Amino acid sequence: MSANPYETGLDMTAANYQPLSPLSFLPKAAFTYPDYTSVIDGEARHTWAGTYARCRRLASALAQRGIGKGDTVAVMAPNVTAAFEATFGVPMLGAVLNALNYRLSAGEIAFILDHGEAKVLITDTEFSPTIEAALKQVKNPPIVIDIEDPAGPGGTSLGELNYEAFLATGDPEFEWNLPGDEWEAISLNYTSGTTGNPKGVVYAHRGTYLNAMGNAIAWGLHDHPVYLWTLPMFHCNGWCFPWTITALAGTHVCLRRVEAKPIYDAIADHGVSHMCGAPVVMQAIAGAGEGERREFSQTVKMFTAAAPPPAAVLAEMARQGFDVTHVYGLTEVYGPCVVSAWKGEWDELPLDEQSRLKARQGVAYQVQEGLIVANPDTLEPVAMDGESMGEVFMRGNITMKGYLKNPQATEEAFAGGWFHSGDLGVWHPDGYIELKDRSKDIIISGGENISSIEVEDVLYKHAAVAAVAVVAKPDEKWGETPVAFIELKADGEATAEELIAFCRDNLAHYKCPREVVFAELPKTSTGKIQKFVLRDQARGAAE
Amino acid sequence: MSANPYETGLDMTAANYQPLSPLSFLPKAAFTYPDYTSVIDGEARHTWAGTYARCRRLASALAQRGIGKGDTVAVMAPNVTAAFEATFGVPMLGAVLNALNYRLSAGEIAFILDHGEAKVLITDTEFSPTIEAALKQVKNPPIVIDIEDPAGPGGTSLGELNYEAFLATGDPEFEWNLPGDEWEAISLNYTSGTTGNPKGVVYAHRGTYLNAMGNAIAWGLHDHPVYLWTLPMFHCNGWCFPWTITALAGTHVCLRRVEAKPIYDAIADHGVSHMCGAPVVMQAIAGAGEGERREFSQTVKMFTAAAPPPAAVLAEMARQGFDVTHVYGLTEVYGPCVVSAWKGEWDELPLDEQSRLKARQGVAYQVQEGLIVANPDTLEPVAMDGESMGEVFMRGNITMKGYLKNPQATEEAFAGGWFHSGDLGVWHPDGYIELKDRSKDIIISGGENISSIEVEDVLYKHAAVAAVAVVAKPDEKWGETPVAFIELKADGEATAEELIAFCRDNLAHYKCPREVVFAELPKTSTGKIQKFVLRDQARGAAE
Repeated sequence: MSANPYETGLDMTAANYQPLSPLSFLPKAAFTYPDYTSVIDGEARHTWAGTYARCRRLASALAQRGIGKGDTVAVMAPNVTAAFEATFGVPMLGAVLNALNYRLSAGEIAFILDHGEAKVLITDTEFSPTIEAALKQVKNPPIVIDIEDPAGPGGTSLGELNYEAFLATGDPEFEWNLPGDEWEAISLNYTSGTTGNPKGVVYAHRGTYLNAMGNAIAWGLHDHPVYLWTLPMFHCNGWCFPWTITALAGTHVCLRRVEAKPIYDAIADHGVSHMCGAPVVMQAIAGAGEGERREFSQTVKMFTAAAPPPAAVLAEMARQGFDVTHVYGLTEVYGPCVVSAWKGEWDELPLDEQSRLKARQGVAYQVQEGLIVANPDTLEPVAMDGESMGEVFMRGNITMKGYLKNPQATEEAFAGGWFHSGDLGVWHPDGYIELKDRSKDIIISGGENISSIEVEDVLYKHAAVAAVAVVAKPDEKWGETPVAFIELKADGEATAEELIAFCRDNLAHYKCPREVVFAELPKTSTGKIQKFVLRDQARGAAE
Repeated sequence: MSANPYETGLDMTAANYQPLSPLSFLPKAAFTYPDYTSVIDGEARHTWAGTYARCRRLASALAQRGIGKGDTVAVMAPNVTAAFEATFGVPMLGAVLNALNYRLSAGEIAFILDHGEAKVLITDTEFSPTIEAALKQVKNPPIVIDIEDPAGPGGTSLGELNYEAFLATGDPEFEWNLPGDEWEAISLNYTSGTTGNPKGVVYAHRGTYLNAMGNAIAWGLHDHPVYLWTLPMFHCNGWCFPWTITALAGTHVCLRRVEAKPIYDAIADHGVSHMCGAPVVMQAIAGAGEGERREFSQTVKMFTAAAPPPAAVLAEMARQGFDVTHVYGLTEVYGPCVVSAWKGEWDELPLDEQSRLKARQGVAYQVQEGLIVANPDTLEPVAMDGESMGEVFMRGNITMKGYLKNPQATEEAFAGGWFHSGDLGVWHPDGYIELKDRSKDIIISGGENISSIEVEDVLYKHAAVAAVAVVAKPDEKWGETPVAFIELKADGEATAEELIAFCRDNLAHYKCPREVVFAELPKTSTGKIQKFVLRDQARGAAE
């Protein structure tokens, strides 16, 4: 017997192996389609050749400030040109992009800047009040670069240079390299998770490359889509769409404000073909007033996630010219990795039945290897009967590298070789999964995760509070909102308004309870608060 | 300074890393679309659940015969179900698929079976005469399984079992594994190359996964394409389309005979949406007679390669409802890795100009990292002026692992970190490459590579021949055909017919000269035959 001949003389070389990285898409777009429109942002237009030069300028300017491999660059911005350019310009150096949720409070931002060790912060002046306060709290203040957007509301400049002046210091022909290893980090995205402090989810070049492809394949994208940025780029790097749309040399249409009028204007004026967003975006579109709507001839395809789209909204979206696909994911899986793949034969079903099918989260992306609903302790898959509850688990190449500087949380999240989503659901006989309950400690409001524990931690700091439980209350507009059930101390005194104001001083506003209920909290015999009772109560109150 | 925090506690685990392999697409298609049609083959219909079970049976049956990692399984078949199933069933074991060119002679097949060390040969009885003769020559005869296709012409069964009986011995729920390493070999494809003996091009799981995706992205494929198998599956594993179409849970429409009538029948009867093939396929379609054509309502998209599509054929194809895209590649780059990407603004140009643009080979696939036209000695890129000639070089993840048991040829092919295509061309100012001359020693006839050196080697064995040079002659139907220029020995005597017959005894018929010219061969002062003079002469004769 000879040895395996396929293992001899057939090694990886520079000719036949290159690390996977979504950065490779940008020079290709610039090379083949140099004068195609890459970015539309208010009155500004960029071409692919121009965008590539600007991203190289950004990398070069950062390199001149000493930024290099493994350094973190944070961005606090709405969906503007700079936020998009950072998805290429930062990792071109081997540096790591940390896009910040601009709805967070100064304290939360300060925590993230410290934990992520950001060396540079590129920040839109709209958020200067928050950032100014945050910078006073951080241990090692980063270099600050201001985005002074003429379309923005103005605001104080905090840094040494503005973004355009900073770019001007960079070389448009800067020589950069793909990562030496496709497992290197490309970005850092903080998630509320279920514990008090946010966790830093680290993405790899390999995973973002594959999910950029995965989006295109799952959606059947053609060359040159016109993509409207209704989904925040700070959410899982815009679900990897900065890289998907660039791979296809499409057009990124920026959008500062996710409101009905600018959405309709962009669709009508720029021929938008695709967009993503939480149900709250659909509601803005479906509920638009007369002066906000515009006529357009194309069908706009939309990916939505975070909550099943309600039947009435889906019907109205279809009437308005939108073709909605329901996807599901989490920050830990690069954004969507599950799609409610639509079967042609379902077109014939009654609308309610269609809506019921579309509300299911669906099946795994082609690029995600595994998706199961299973017993959280044994990882034994549940019966595919549409009734047996289990936790949703994923595995494969579009699962995060892990949580930054948190090996214990990483180990727990990956116990047994699967990512534990914390979401609970069933598995239907046709293989589609459907969430039946979010992880008990997560509230999703307007597409944003809120950790009930984080809110509880704040309320426990109030002198009058004896016990607290925060749960989700169904909400027509936001999907869910947090409601706080509170037991005051015997000698404690506080009004609902005072407690909400206390939260707003310590948390992003969207995380704060909309409602406070004073009551004795139901507890188990061992003293554990029975949140399910409170959830039922909140749900009942909303109906 | 702290160490790079992104390099600690963020390792690959079973949860976040899986080897890339196109095998993962099959269980997904079977899971989500179990009753969708996977394969149409004559009267037979298969579903994705059924195909997955059959592929597992194949893997299981092979395993029972001792086949495992690194073993070669050869297939000699037209585009029938078994040939498709082998693209999954064989590599499920870690074994390597060697699809054979059924136009080769017995001697050529014997060489390949010996060189590739095939342990099993699955062969269609149509080719039994060739295989029977080949098996008499091989050193270690493989286990032979016969494909007895009711739609085939019959023929002698040579093996111990037929394919269906063999499958019946396998377990439809056979437990298989993805490869442990994505760099493992998945297939072996012999290419004529420019030297006498064919070279065995080895593909990796990683590369076939990425090119399966690359095809979908380059073509903008949606879910469920209906793909007609006009391209032989033995050509670069059908350009990776067995895996692309399976990733999209499409339908593979098999086709034993690439002729106008069955092509039109398949398109009209099965709603074919996509197909690939050499220009000879387009000519069959464009030149179809009255009794062969059928009406159909869809536009059929077609990838063509091997020679630029002539303007008249393109125009006729458009009239018949085909949308043709020109792609370019070689066996060494997994089939197509370059596409003549069409720009919308070109639709307005005169037809001749459109044809001129479409005839260019184009730009790199998204999944191929590098494509240059460069000086073959220095690898210095040529000027992008549409005139400076150079050799075409590729690099990236869809470049072969190398040539089996031929480290010297592999090293030469990858010298300088680029794959040397051997094709000569120019680089246009817009970045599109255009071949101006095939590698001097390759003749492409009906989409098949013919090594002129291989044909010359045979003719040199004829007792009457003193010197020989084989060159390409342009041919309306086949693109090119080989013509032999021969100097007889002073005492030698042979007719053109005798020499052609001598070739046919030793070579695949398509490789044999169509024409023999007796002449004194033009030589350089150092005695080297001036082939370019003969090529000019052959070209002149054809005009």
